[in-house]
Amino acid sequence: MKNLKERIIKDGYVIGNDILKVDSFINHQIDTQLLDELGEYFSKKFDGVNKILTIESSGIAFGVGVARHYGNIPMVFAKKSKSKIVDENNLYTTVVDSFTKGTSNTVCVDKRFLKPGDKCLIVDDFLAEGNASIGLIDLCKQAGAEVVGVAIVIEKGFQNGRKRLEKLGIHVESAAIVDHFENGKVILK
Amino acid sequence: MKNLKERIIKDGYVIGNDILKVDSFINHQIDTQLLDELGEYFSKKFDGVNKILTIESSGIAFGVGVARHYGNIPMVFAKKSKSKIVDENNLYTTVVDSFTKGTSNTVCVDKRFLKPGDKCLIVDDFLAEGNASIGLIDLCKQAGAEVVGVAIVIEKGFQNGRKRLEKLGIHVESAAIVDHFENGKVILK
Repeated sequence: MKNLKERIIKDGYVIGNDILKVDSFINHQIDTQLLDELGEYFSKKFDGVNKILTIESSGIAFGVGVARHYGNIPMVFAKKSKSKIVDENNLYTTVVDSFTKGTSNTVCVDKRFLKPGDKCLIVDDFLAEGNASIGLIDLCKQAGAEVVGVAIVIEKGFQNGRKRLEKLGIHVESAAIVDHFENGKVILK
Repeated sequence: MKNLKERIIKDGYVIGNDILKVDSFINHQIDTQLLDELGEYFSKKFDGVNKILTIESSGIAFGVGVARHYGNIPMVFAKKSKSKIVDENNLYTTVVDSFTKGTSNTVCVDKRFLKPGDKCLIVDDFLAEGNASIGLIDLCKQAGAEVVGVAIVIEKGFQNGRKRLEKLGIHVESAAIVDHFENGKVILK
């Protein structure tokens, strides 16, 4: 998506040689105009979606942006921490490793919110090794819900996420793909 | 707001005698149509807003919903955990206690995203004792940003949040106010 790619070049920056920061418009301060354009972009890429599924917290804003362009369908986000007000017997759970944080989290979705008949579009801000998406696909499988595809704002083309997802037969779309980093600069495909 | 109040009565439920669960439409599965109506509702309550400020994760979806009705202004959410990719010297930080989780978190906003001249509307899903809002007000104060007001989806009218905020001179609006709980049912004002 042209606007996103231009924005990454303009306002994204690289830390070390593997982390792309887009915190001024994607995941700390959010450009809600760009978010809306991303929602529209992805709604034309996937048909027959009746639910958006994402993960706390990185995917929530993007999930809302996409849901609106499918006529305000429900958006479910998998939760990371189990608060004292959650009944653990009624949850689908799976384990997800975070690439950027170096941590491992059990994430869960209440069984009432994923059902057979649901046609889920999984969305997230980044695709690196694909761990978050694979975790969400596992939750859908447990629930008997269908995965229509995976929609990603920024894909790291030099990591294995897309390969792993396509091996599972999943349709993957990204709005921008990072080819590589070069002297602290991001080179897009 | 009529639609929200009806939905709370229909789909909300009470755990113990102090926790109202609205996870089927507000904070786990999100009714994005209702979210859009909430955004419109609050955009008519506060003027002169140029930034939405909220807190991870509970306020993110609501923040996006509100930002859209101010013409897609930027939305900033304070972050709870410091990932390894954040530079701590460039952050405003404050401590927030969570009523429902029984935990205490340091939350932070990057100094680039709160500035003098910002006219912030603080938004969150619940108002109980007001700890999250007071923490966000503190971040605005540190930055020299103005707080236009606090917009809340569901206020617990029997707790002290509104009193504490109004004592600070803050304009508070809620879309629904819980008067009390009675035999496991929620009674709205």
